[in-house]
Amino acid sequence: MTNITLEVEGMSCQHCVNSIEGALKEIGAAGKVDLNSNRVAVDYDENRVTLEAIKEAIEEQGYEVV
Amino acid sequence: MTNITLEVEGMSCQHCVNSIEGALKEIGAAGKVDLNSNRVAVDYDENRVTLEAIKEAIEEQGYEVV
Repeated sequence: MTNITLEVEGMSCQHCVNSIEGALKEIGAAGKVDLNSNRVAVDYDENRVTLEAIKEAIEEQGYEVV
Repeated sequence: MTNITLEVEGMSCQHCVNSIEGALKEIGAAGKVDLNSNRVAVDYDENRVTLEAIKEAIEEQGYEVV
C-alpha cells in the first residue's frame, strides 16, 4: 500500500469532502480530505491504481491538484 | 407569487447551491443562490408554502438563515 498527500484547491465544505472521497473510492483508492490544510491523503495499491488516475479522479470533481 | 431574499450562512460551493435549490424545489418553491452575497432569492406561492417551511428546508441542509 502506498500513501501520498496531495494539495488540492477549491475544497470548501463537507459536500466537497464527500465528492472527492467518493471519487477516490470508485477507483479503488482510500482518500481522506483535510479541509483546514487543503490536503488529501490517499492510500492506494500501486499495482492497481496510478497516481495519474488519482489526480484525474479529483480533478474530474472540479478541484485542482496543485 | 411572492419573492423574498434571505441571508444564509455557510454556503460555499456549487454543491451547496445544488442542495439548497434542490430542497426548495422539493417543497414547491424556486430558489436562486448567490454565493457572492450569501443570499438566497426565493419565489413561492404564499397559499402553498410558508416562509417558515422555506427557512426549515434551508436549515435542514445544514445552513443557517440569518
